Amino acid sequence: MSEIKKIAVLTSGGDAPGMNSAVRAVVFSANNLGIEVVGVLRGYEGLIDWETIPLGLDDVRNINNQGGTILFTSRSERFLDQKYRHTAAKNLRAHDVDAVVAIGGDGTLRGAIKFKDEGVNIVCIPGTIDRDVACSEYTLGFDTAANTAMEAIDKIRDSSVSHGRCSVVEVMGRKRGYIALWAGMATSADAIVLPEKWDGNFDYIINALRKRHTDGRNSYLVVVAEGVTDAGKLADLIQKETGIESRVSVLGYIQRGGQPTAKDRMYGSLMGAYAIEILRQGRGNRIVAIKNDILVDYDIAEAIDLHNNNLDSFQYQLSLMLAE
Amino acid sequence: MSEIKKIAVLTSGGDAPGMNSAVRAVVFSANNLGIEVVGVLRGYEGLIDWETIPLGLDDVRNINNQGGTILFTSRSERFLDQKYRHTAAKNLRAHDVDAVVAIGGDGTLRGAIKFKDEGVNIVCIPGTIDRDVACSEYTLGFDTAANTAMEAIDKIRDSSVSHGRCSVVEVMGRKRGYIALWAGMATSADAIVLPEKWDGNFDYIINALRKRHTDGRNSYLVVVAEGVTDAGKLADLIQKETGIESRVSVLGYIQRGGQPTAKDRMYGSLMGAYAIEILRQGRGNRIVAIKNDILVDYDIAEAIDLHNNNLDSFQYQLSLMLAE
Amino acid sequence: MSEIKKIAVLTSGGDAPGMNSAVRAVVFSANNLGIEVVGVLRGYEGLIDWETIPLGLDDVRNINNQGGTILFTSRSERFLDQKYRHTAAKNLRAHDVDAVVAIGGDGTLRGAIKFKDEGVNIVCIPGTIDRDVACSEYTLGFDTAANTAMEAIDKIRDSSVSHGRCSVVEVMGRKRGYIALWAGMATSADAIVLPEKWDGNFDYIINALRKRHTDGRNSYLVVVAEGVTDAGKLADLIQKETGIESRVSVLGYIQRGGQPTAKDRMYGSLMGAYAIEILRQGRGNRIVAIKNDILVDYDIAEAIDLHNNNLDSFQYQLSLMLAE
Amino acid sequence: MSEIKKIAVLTSGGDAPGMNSAVRAVVFSANNLGIEVVGVLRGYEGLIDWETIPLGLDDVRNINNQGGTILFTSRSERFLDQKYRHTAAKNLRAHDVDAVVAIGGDGTLRGAIKFKDEGVNIVCIPGTIDRDVACSEYTLGFDTAANTAMEAIDKIRDSSVSHGRCSVVEVMGRKRGYIALWAGMATSADAIVLPEKWDGNFDYIINALRKRHTDGRNSYLVVVAEGVTDAGKLADLIQKETGIESRVSVLGYIQRGGQPTAKDRMYGSLMGAYAIEILRQGRGNRIVAIKNDILVDYDIAEAIDLHNNNLDSFQYQLSLMLAE
Repeated sequence: MSEIKKIAVLTSGGDAPGMNSAVRAVVFSANNLGIEVVGVLRGYEGLIDWETIPLGLDDVRNINNQGGTILFTSRSERFLDQKYRHTAAKNLRAHDVDAVVAIGGDGTLRGAIKFKDEGVNIVCIPGTIDRDVACSEYTLGFDTAANTAMEAIDKIRDSSVSHGRCSVVEVMGRKRGYIALWAGMATSADAIVLPEKWDGNFDYIINALRKRHTDGRNSYLVVVAEGVTDAGKLADLIQKETGIESRVSVLGYIQRGGQPTAKDRMYGSLMGAYAIEILRQGRGNRIVAIKNDILVDYDIAEAIDLHNNNLDSFQYQLSLMLAE
Repeated sequence: MSEIKKIAVLTSGGDAPGMNSAVRAVVFSANNLGIEVVGVLRGYEGLIDWETIPLGLDDVRNINNQGGTILFTSRSERFLDQKYRHTAAKNLRAHDVDAVVAIGGDGTLRGAIKFKDEGVNIVCIPGTIDRDVACSEYTLGFDTAANTAMEAIDKIRDSSVSHGRCSVVEVMGRKRGYIALWAGMATSADAIVLPEKWDGNFDYIINALRKRHTDGRNSYLVVVAEGVTDAGKLADLIQKETGIESRVSVLGYIQRGGQPTAKDRMYGSLMGAYAIEILRQGRGNRIVAIKNDILVDYDIAEAIDLHNNNLDSFQYQLSLMLAE
Repeated sequence: MSEIKKIAVLTSGGDAPGMNSAVRAVVFSANNLGIEVVGVLRGYEGLIDWETIPLGLDDVRNINNQGGTILFTSRSERFLDQKYRHTAAKNLRAHDVDAVVAIGGDGTLRGAIKFKDEGVNIVCIPGTIDRDVACSEYTLGFDTAANTAMEAIDKIRDSSVSHGRCSVVEVMGRKRGYIALWAGMATSADAIVLPEKWDGNFDYIINALRKRHTDGRNSYLVVVAEGVTDAGKLADLIQKETGIESRVSVLGYIQRGGQPTAKDRMYGSLMGAYAIEILRQGRGNRIVAIKNDILVDYDIAEAIDLHNNNLDSFQYQLSLMLAE
Repeated sequence: MSEIKKIAVLTSGGDAPGMNSAVRAVVFSANNLGIEVVGVLRGYEGLIDWETIPLGLDDVRNINNQGGTILFTSRSERFLDQKYRHTAAKNLRAHDVDAVVAIGGDGTLRGAIKFKDEGVNIVCIPGTIDRDVACSEYTLGFDTAANTAMEAIDKIRDSSVSHGRCSVVEVMGRKRGYIALWAGMATSADAIVLPEKWDGNFDYIINALRKRHTDGRNSYLVVVAEGVTDAGKLADLIQKETGIESRVSVLGYIQRGGQPTAKDRMYGSLMGAYAIEILRQGRGNRIVAIKNDILVDYDIAEAIDLHNNNLDSFQYQLSLMLAE
């Protein structure tokens, strides 16, 4: 692969804390190698419409502690169409861009795999609070989101303990229950509902609450991942089956934003630097990932089938033991 | 009034951060005067059923930074019935309790006024995040709730700015728009909807958003107090009238909980100490209040008609100017 | 006074959270009236050297939640010299600036009073974490600093309770003990040392600690304002006189920074808007202040002798009672 | 190994956030197996003096979000003496305690290795903010401390940027520079000083600052681990060699306390449960550890020589690249 002189960087999919740290590290590392960086706005949409801004050190120096993404983002429908990917690739060539660094989640990776067919060199960085890019144990934004959810539930608990009732809290996570698992464990939830483990009915929750009620407890906390059901239906069921007064909280978009934690700033920085390192080594079409808590990288097409990220681990067994 | 030797303290209505500081100060101040303190559980319900715990210095020493209330709370339906208030008063006499300190909101004050007719000496402390005890400029819990709402909306903003859309955030406040006003001002909202000022339609919001859209803005924030409408209806209206993609967030119960801010711990402590000071002076049936940022107290029956707390101030005019 | 068409705004003295909200409100309010705003960098130094930036809505739209000041600041030695104030005044006239809004503390106000003699129209806004601008009950930044100190001390307490020892924490406040008072009260300190009340010796602290030790306590917290003494000397004295193992913490500059609380964003916004309102009314050479928790303003020369801000209030008496 | 019926749990060495989650998980997991738990106070000192409290579910149910340790701690000098370890072992036998779970740092592990010679079955959990238990990649408390340091430095930065000067911040870490590395990376420090990498002089810092000054920067941030030097000396050197005004901050004990982050609550819970699992399997004299981000365990005597935790990794190289 020929020498890299100019790259484009973009953020795509749901915004995630730590994306700015990755962008910053990409710019600093590229700068160290004399590589020019172009910031693409609004993810893949910006490649199609060629909406860009120059990115120098001063543009990114102090963005480490900012939530959201300075490059904005989108879930591009048009990029699913080969016609638009072709346009995007033409734009890159027209502007002498040698490679693209794309920070995003599963949808971003899938888009990258197709984009590769246009002859584009693209390096992906997994960034999504859902932690559902299967080839990576960790994705940028998860730690911040888990802490945000935990802190919000700590406050909700204060209120349900004071009033002696049940709080049913819905957290983000359509396919993966990581946020529900961590936030539920961290706030001593009485029951946690995960997509990966849900067998279709809520009997175990009803039974757990009944048992605690019998043991003399009078406040309860249930954390449910949005992919299973919405908190409202579950609260109604609980109130109907046990008589326990239940209140609903849907944490919503607070889970996407906020100043990133130390882990997301650190891992965002490391992943961004690593992406440039991959390009410096003359490699391409890779996705940066975490495996065994170490930075690694995979071919983006092969990465789709890797599963370094799942809940069937010893750790999960233990956490279920604790949650009972 | 004869010398006070034993008092009961309770927290009632919605829980509010700072209630624990008030309880703590009541116990410490009473202890300084050799007055015994009984903690009543679950507000007025605990007076009816005489559910109590002894409260010594060690029980309250470190509760200053705890959200919720260590005495639990309730919205007592039974206390609305004179029969049960009579029972409660009998319980107090049977246990030689000379006075009651009740920390709560508007409903708690109204219950206290009726309770006075049973010959009970009761001193109230205004504690509710809604800031709607009319005789007092400030009520315990408001500062913490305003900051909690502000921080949550800061995070939601990160996401709507990244995605270029409108966030409609619903905050607590059925009759009063204080939380909406402070949180909306603090997060640079494009429009704030307050019960006190809402004239029945949302045209001004639609117009404000259209104007900003025309000015080149592409992300928007609307903060609405729950007493006006729910955020879902408003978001649908915005999307329908302007085409701007809108997402809903209902902050919910996080606004009730969490570690209290410095103001709520400080004012909670001052109000608790002041309640005991009132009793020491041989006075009773008063409500502690804040007027001109100074501690004052009023006769509880007269207090209902006082309005030291309203939005028609110069400050509110200015804030509306800024919000446009 | 002739119509205001262009103003300059600056921040001076120690930086304080909320300064950005005031700058933002100045720009928005001025913009509403068609007044052009010039941002002066680094306080009075920027007036002398005429270092400025234009300030439009987009420059300040999102700075509400930022600590520090986007206009930077300084403690200008040169401004004490009439020669340089003369230069500064000439710069203002040369650039058609009709009035100056200066946000800062006591030193900034004193500089403004002298600057007035150069024929400059200057409106001051009290901004300093020390809360020591005597004519105002409140100064921007205090609430955030008090909360920052409180949260830091909460963490320090965890450690001294775990180890069973005494923590002596030094907080900011050379002449005023507000931060020490609020942070000490909010964290249940065993003793608080304030400049306003210190009589020259620490016997009362030694006695308080000895008494608690006798009562069976084994961890202690002392909060001291830097203006009295440094925490190291006090810790040594405690260890020498009581044998209690003592550790020192100097909170330092964390107290100046951080995202502002809701109060500092709100009051910063109100004060900034009010400053422009004063100019719009054709008045000048005023300082915005808070009295009875209401916005007021005073002639800057007279303001120096006003004392709306002192600790000899009923509230302070009560807080001392609680601290014993 | 015979069946475990009763265990003792203690926390020892510097307190660390997450210790309470580990204690809680030990109690819950033991309870699930019908094992009785005795809480030993103040670490190894409590074993020597047999100062204990019973630990049931209600004692630990809600301690997940509390900093410090409910069992208190100490750095026991007496435990270094075999005579006292012998006494401690006798106490355990006299009270039918089958095994001990000890949560602490390197000193605690070394004490455990010696204690094993008294015929005691002891399982260790690595808990210390310094992350210097060599056999484990991670130790409880590090994530919280790194985030606390990061947040404090973010605030300090606001002030040094506003004033245009250099902040030299000293963080904890006598032998290990992890907190300095993470906090420095997360706050975009201009230079980071680590014990593992320091070669005896500060030229590289002076040069880095001079270069940035030449590039037009006027505020700087240096983060130094306490094990290298104290921030005061470094600040003096910087001011002397470069003329740049420098201010010192020593973060101190705030780094030990505070509510634990999600990682420390989760890993504390997992490690506590795993310790009981080890005992249930009939194994003993082990230390729980993290390797490749998975829970593992090692023989405590062998663990001393393992090095799963060091900075000479690819990740560290990358982070140094970024810090330049």
